[in-house]
This record gives sequence, C-alpha cells and structure tokens, in this order.
Amino acid sequence: MNISHIEHLGIAVKNLEEAIPYYEKVLGLKCYAIEEVADQKVKTAFFKVGQTKIELLEPTNEESTIAKFIEKRGEGVHHVAFAVADGVANALSEVESKEVKLIDKAPRKGAEGLNIAFLHPKSTMGVLTELCENPNA
Amino acid sequence: MNISHIEHLGIAVKNLEEAIPYYEKVLGLKCYAIEEVADQKVKTAFFKVGQTKIELLEPTNEESTIAKFIEKRGEGVHHVAFAVADGVANALSEVESKEVKLIDKAPRKGAEGLNIAFLHPKSTMGVLTELCENPNA
Repeated sequence: MNISHIEHLGIAVKNLEEAIPYYEKVLGLKCYAIEEVADQKVKTAFFKVGQTKIELLEPTNEESTIAKFIEKRGEGVHHVAFAVADGVANALSEVESKEVKLIDKAPRKGAEGLNIAFLHPKSTMGVLTELCENPNA
Repeated sequence: MNISHIEHLGIAVKNLEEAIPYYEKVLGLKCYAIEEVADQKVKTAFFKVGQTKIELLEPTNEESTIAKFIEKRGEGVHHVAFAVADGVANALSEVESKEVKLIDKAPRKGAEGLNIAFLHPKSTMGVLTELCENPNA
C-alpha cells in the first residue's frame, strides 16, 4: 500500500457549538466547512492543519456510531484516515490478502466526496483506520 | 497560537514486536527509529507519513501512564501532537490565559529532543494534546 499522508483525524465531540470555539480560539485553526452526513448520523466540522484535516463529528442521533463511541469511551479521537495513492479498492484487496479484517469490503462515499473504506480496529491495534482517496485530485 | 502541522500521533500498543510488522507490512510504512524514553516508562517506534510521524508507545512498566491507558481503554490513539511555530512556552502562556488546563506548566524534553508540553484532555474535548517544537529546526 502506498500511503502519502494522514488525510484527516476524526474526533468525536458531543457538541460542535462547544468544540468549534476551542479549535478556533485556543488552537487558532479555522473551521472552513460544516457538513451533515445523514447516513452516518453525524454533523461534521472541518479544519485544516498542514496536510491533514481535523474532522469533528457530532452525533445527530443516539443510534449513531459516534454517539455510542462517546457513551462508551468519552469524547476523543475516533479514527485515523490515511490517503492512499493507488486507490482504495486496490488497498482493500491488498490488506484483505494479509488477513486484515475489513468493515467495508468495497469503497463508499464519505464526507467531502472522498472514496473511503474502514479497516476493523481488531486488526489494526485498536486504531479505527480509514483509507481514502480524492477521486478529483 | 500558530500551529503548522500535526507533528505526530502517539498510539498506545501492548507490544512493539506485534505492532511494527502491522505498520510496515500492511500499511507499508517504515520504522526509522526505536527509542526508550525512560522517564515516561515507554519504548517508542517511529514511522513517517507525509508531514506527520506515528509514534507507537509500548509501556515498559505497569506504572507507565501508557499501561494504565491500555488497561482502561485498550490500545489506540493516545495523544495528538501539534507543531507550534512560535515556541512551546509562548503557546502555553497563551492557552493558559484562555483557561485551558495544563499538564505541563513549562516545556520539557520529549522523544527526539523536541521541546514538548501537554494540555489536559478535560480542556481539549477529550483529546490529550501535546504542543511541540524542534529546537534544531
């Protein structure tokens, strides 16, 4: 697999209205987009820091996986997304051949129009890992 | 505060000997250094991915904060370290004036000779946050 950089960090927060001012006023980052991802039952806020985005994730429904994550572990880093240079489908075939458990067997659409897929944290030493590519890059 | 990029992600693992082959053989990253940080009771392994390093942290003692983290939450992302452009001491004064709770009131030496300081996760929406600068950069 050819990973070029960390595309984003997904961070679970209870409330974007409380979290955005912390990222803007304390860390000095700028929120450049807010997007609702209905099928994931989350509202997201994006910041850019160098090559990497920070994606804050607020659950919009208590059945959201983000709501369950916060209930179990509290707010914090939810996933790490790596940008892959040779396509998500190729990367999935490769990791599956190495007996890594997948959450997504095929790429699907994520926030910002990226092609994404998640690996299972049981195979990744506890880090929920997303692979992604920008089809327009 | 002037953050230039994510300097590294600290990831707690039980065992470097199991984790390094995953990062190398599955993700295709290269471990370029292994370093023991005695006062933190950890052994670390470093990988580079774009601008950001991945720092795997294996506890060397059950009293290590990393051992306690793994016991409570399992393996996973332990902290996020931001590179600050204007110095860690300046950044600490600034965030303290904004009523952010600090773990380190003054910069100290971390792995790879960086000047580092940690903010308290109670003030940072659950993300244990490190500020760092390379004094030789």
